[in-house]
Amino acid sequence: MRSAYSDLAMEAREAYLNEQPGAIPGVETQDWQADGGIHINAVKIINQEGVKALGKPIGTYVTLETRIIPPDIQQQKAASQALAAELIKLVGKVEKTLVVGLGNRYVTADALGPKTVENTLVTRHLLENLPGQVDKRVHSVCAVAPGVLGITGIETLEMVKGLVAHVKPDVVIAIDALASSSTNRLANTIKLTDTGISPGSGLGNMREGLNKETLGVPVIALGVPLVVYAQTISRDALNLLLKTLQDGKQNLDTKRLLAQMDTQADAMIDQVVTQSMGDLVVTPKEIDQVVKEVAYTVAMGINLSLHPEIQFDEMTTLID
Amino acid sequence: MRSAYSDLAMEAREAYLNEQPGAIPGVETQDWQADGGIHINAVKIINQEGVKALGKPIGTYVTLETRIIPPDIQQQKAASQALAAELIKLVGKVEKTLVVGLGNRYVTADALGPKTVENTLVTRHLLENLPGQVDKRVHSVCAVAPGVLGITGIETLEMVKGLVAHVKPDVVIAIDALASSSTNRLANTIKLTDTGISPGSGLGNMREGLNKETLGVPVIALGVPLVVYAQTISRDALNLLLKTLQDGKQNLDTKRLLAQMDTQADAMIDQVVTQSMGDLVVTPKEIDQVVKEVAYTVAMGINLSLHPEIQFDEMTTLID
Amino acid sequence: MRSAYSDLAMEAREAYLNEQPGAIPGVETQDWQADGGIHINAVKIINQEGVKALGKPIGTYVTLETRIIPPDIQQQKAASQALAAELIKLVGKVEKTLVVGLGNRYVTADALGPKTVENTLVTRHLLENLPGQVDKRVHSVCAVAPGVLGITGIETLEMVKGLVAHVKPDVVIAIDALASSSTNRLANTIKLTDTGISPGSGLGNMREGLNKETLGVPVIALGVPLVVYAQTISRDALNLLLKTLQDGKQNLDTKRLLAQMDTQADAMIDQVVTQSMGDLVVTPKEIDQVVKEVAYTVAMGINLSLHPEIQFDEMTTLID
Amino acid sequence: MRSAYSDLAMEAREAYLNEQPGAIPGVETQDWQADGGIHINAVKIINQEGVKALGKPIGTYVTLETRIIPPDIQQQKAASQALAAELIKLVGKVEKTLVVGLGNRYVTADALGPKTVENTLVTRHLLENLPGQVDKRVHSVCAVAPGVLGITGIETLEMVKGLVAHVKPDVVIAIDALASSSTNRLANTIKLTDTGISPGSGLGNMREGLNKETLGVPVIALGVPLVVYAQTISRDALNLLLKTLQDGKQNLDTKRLLAQMDTQADAMIDQVVTQSMGDLVVTPKEIDQVVKEVAYTVAMGINLSLHPEIQFDEMTTLID
Repeated sequence: MRSAYSDLAMEAREAYLNEQPGAIPGVETQDWQADGGIHINAVKIINQEGVKALGKPIGTYVTLETRIIPPDIQQQKAASQALAAELIKLVGKVEKTLVVGLGNRYVTADALGPKTVENTLVTRHLLENLPGQVDKRVHSVCAVAPGVLGITGIETLEMVKGLVAHVKPDVVIAIDALASSSTNRLANTIKLTDTGISPGSGLGNMREGLNKETLGVPVIALGVPLVVYAQTISRDALNLLLKTLQDGKQNLDTKRLLAQMDTQADAMIDQVVTQSMGDLVVTPKEIDQVVKEVAYTVAMGINLSLHPEIQFDEMTTLID
Repeated sequence: MRSAYSDLAMEAREAYLNEQPGAIPGVETQDWQADGGIHINAVKIINQEGVKALGKPIGTYVTLETRIIPPDIQQQKAASQALAAELIKLVGKVEKTLVVGLGNRYVTADALGPKTVENTLVTRHLLENLPGQVDKRVHSVCAVAPGVLGITGIETLEMVKGLVAHVKPDVVIAIDALASSSTNRLANTIKLTDTGISPGSGLGNMREGLNKETLGVPVIALGVPLVVYAQTISRDALNLLLKTLQDGKQNLDTKRLLAQMDTQADAMIDQVVTQSMGDLVVTPKEIDQVVKEVAYTVAMGINLSLHPEIQFDEMTTLID
Repeated sequence: MRSAYSDLAMEAREAYLNEQPGAIPGVETQDWQADGGIHINAVKIINQEGVKALGKPIGTYVTLETRIIPPDIQQQKAASQALAAELIKLVGKVEKTLVVGLGNRYVTADALGPKTVENTLVTRHLLENLPGQVDKRVHSVCAVAPGVLGITGIETLEMVKGLVAHVKPDVVIAIDALASSSTNRLANTIKLTDTGISPGSGLGNMREGLNKETLGVPVIALGVPLVVYAQTISRDALNLLLKTLQDGKQNLDTKRLLAQMDTQADAMIDQVVTQSMGDLVVTPKEIDQVVKEVAYTVAMGINLSLHPEIQFDEMTTLID
Repeated sequence: MRSAYSDLAMEAREAYLNEQPGAIPGVETQDWQADGGIHINAVKIINQEGVKALGKPIGTYVTLETRIIPPDIQQQKAASQALAAELIKLVGKVEKTLVVGLGNRYVTADALGPKTVENTLVTRHLLENLPGQVDKRVHSVCAVAPGVLGITGIETLEMVKGLVAHVKPDVVIAIDALASSSTNRLANTIKLTDTGISPGSGLGNMREGLNKETLGVPVIALGVPLVVYAQTISRDALNLLLKTLQDGKQNLDTKRLLAQMDTQADAMIDQVVTQSMGDLVVTPKEIDQVVKEVAYTVAMGINLSLHPEIQFDEMTTLID
């Protein structure tokens, strides 16, 4: 699981705008509504001014606010179709794609990538072996879930590099579960970027990133926040409390106290949380079902974007 | 999952002792160390004074602090053996036992009960059908995982009542995952009580409890805290912060402010947490593996207690 | 898994007709085609003559030949709808149903019953607790997967009896995987009967049957053949070979030899098969997926029959 | 799943010996007993005469007849230790190993490879990142389960080649489920060879083999027969029947008939078996548990062979 903190251009922009209201130089933003009431936000960082302002590489960052959960087939169909439309804009016209499902299939909350691969329509082997006999609307797609360092002993980048060298895809789409900075986006937000997965983001075992620099082909990163770290949720509660109190009229001593609390809060939270037996994560109680539904919806979006002449209903019959 | 708040006599005692240092009338407590460095605490509520002081029924409440996680076979063996010893004290000499695994097998963090049943040595059918041919050391055990109300449409109590009427066990052992009030006991604490599962404890779908009153036979409840509610963890962090500040020298205005914060804290936390998509729980990141290891350890403890002439190593070969 | 040999009235009829061409006294049969090219055969045994002729109790035996596998959403929808129509004829108008998923959820080929229960729309708890607030089209349904004797130590009949006494359903629908007598019907045949599950059918752990005599309410048995015993498939091959040879012109010695082979065949097959490590079954290679698809299709058929005012597409959104 | 027909030098030898009793030129064989009553047979093909006689490449073929199933911890320990001893002989002294788990993790009977990888002690990442801090007894091991062509769209050989080029192991150990030619060896036979996996063996999706020619490093293939094809089991029954009859005194006509049957048998069997919906396999009924037990036993054998200074009991605590 990667942290969504650094990935989330929209949040960076919001944080920036709190301090610098008005347009951000070097950054273009756009918001709109897709079918099914899906809100989409796109942030483009177009030059070094934008890079400096948002602390992220030049590129496009798209956030879709969908309603995959609770499960509703019509809402999920709308989410898949909106995702497909955004992927097509980011990916452009491609003939050959490698889909990479990151994460650990044996840890429910981290299994989004592998489970998305399970539902991806894979065609490369058919096109290579029976070129004349495959439906003309189908393009070449292959898909792997390389596993995590602790189980394989091999860095994800090492695995994917070898495959890219061999398969020579036009683009890589990498799917991962994210750790969110906020509970209200869990499972229903899809994040896309054409900058790949940055070095340094994530939990330490992806130290080099998956991106055009490391792989030599464009990398689209697709992430869905599925967990919140326990520290985050405590911090959110404290912040809200402090903010509410600071908004009231307070004398000087009180203001000083609140400032002091603000300073000490992180240490307190760490103390509470790290008494525990290890990494604690906050998840929806029904995480097993949530991951299954999100993986299916995301995979359908990918399938529709890579074989755009096949419609949703037909696609559902192809991926069983 | 039941809340451990109400189940946890030790915590009630600690809360009480903070306000009323010294012995609690009507309550006897004992602490000792078992093999493998396992700390055991037993609280006996012996009369109405004790009931009033701790807010729980007359009975025995045992807490084992074990090291099941991270996995270590020797530590798990010690935990199973210590659990067996405590169960034997609570259960006494019985010939026929019904083991009930509560919870939802399709929700990882709630699957402890069903997974414990999977590892329980079941013998009733052999003893009934081939009475002369079964190892003399084996006693009659049967086991069910009745499922949860949302999946079956039937209250757990209704299911278990029918079985008890038919099987006529000497005792029921009911296993359940607990929601803890503290992160530092997750997965490594085993709680036992001979008072069964009280009405009103839990998440609302066990409105009548499983106990001697409802089932007509003694009910031993065995619980292991596997999750913490997101509210709890935030509340803990806030409490620690407020306590630290209140301990310092503060003028009157500050004290008033802190008191005000204390009052508002719960509402703030609820606001933060319930912005989310539903019930959020805090779990160890590796919850899939944790549940598997705990279920095996608990089931072995139950097996050793119900067939006390069979040793650990032999028992491992019987339950595959 | 029950053997389909004894359950399969159609086969019994065919066997009979081979020797007694023409109508069978005491037996009515009907064949027709439902939407989606589904062939349906219904056999009614109406009196003791029919019982004697077919060796099965008085009642109705329906066989649907569907195309659930390979997976195709339209074919599965047609199968669910045809199944619902036949169930409605057999069950009649009922207000309260108990669905029982037989079999072992931990053995893939035997998990059809438990997996069907997972996809059953369960409503009894809502109707009992919030009677005014539930959609008027919904009837009372509850569902259990009681597990198998080797895991629970309790006979299935004992478990179901207790539930029936408590829930007081108008009808029980019992789902089970069958062992087929022929490979060409695997996974695509659905068998229904209003005679329940007979004593003596099956693998020995259902010695008393689930039927009106034992439960006091009508029992509809629904089975799908998912495995073939290894002996069966070998016997089929031998029979075909012997039949082909016997059809040819042969002298007396040869006929005698073939008769001798026929006599010895079963012993030979047993010798080959039982050299193995235990029960061997023949399954489709993709049995994991097959069971999942069949369980979903069967559950949808049950759901549509028990809440007949809800259409297929809406139903799919209710059972996630 | 690969067919064991071509892999099984011992069977080839037996077939050969039936026709050519006495020593086979170019072939050395040895049989002995290991602890725990495990029978081991080693066949060495040492020159082109042996290649011609047995139809297999020059190399060593080892078969261990173990008792992994039914599960017994002592028997499984003995099997792991005997397997480790044979692997050490075949592999020699190595510093760096790549373990490859072949097969489809979503098809129970084909999941042996992926499940073995799950239980493999993986250390390469630790040795590379924290070289001074790792237990001196540990050697470099990494492990992958590359998935099957139908799910990834990429040939297994393509995947493994890329990894070998990057990881530069001294040896590759490839694990796979086998389709056996006989039911009496299912799950309890372990086959090893230092010739890798030959081109043309298997079910068609491994058209180039995994061996020293294709990968550039020695490849040890480790296989366990877990299924029998339905055709095989029928053929076995017929053969036994024909053989029994042929052994008796028969006149000329009868002999002619039997010869005719022998000729027609394969076509008959295919006709019976392929009336079914697709590939049918014969498996033990409890295949889910069988695969789990065999994978653990095999992985322990591999672990003991690659870190030979660590004993069995300590190893069990390292792979959880």
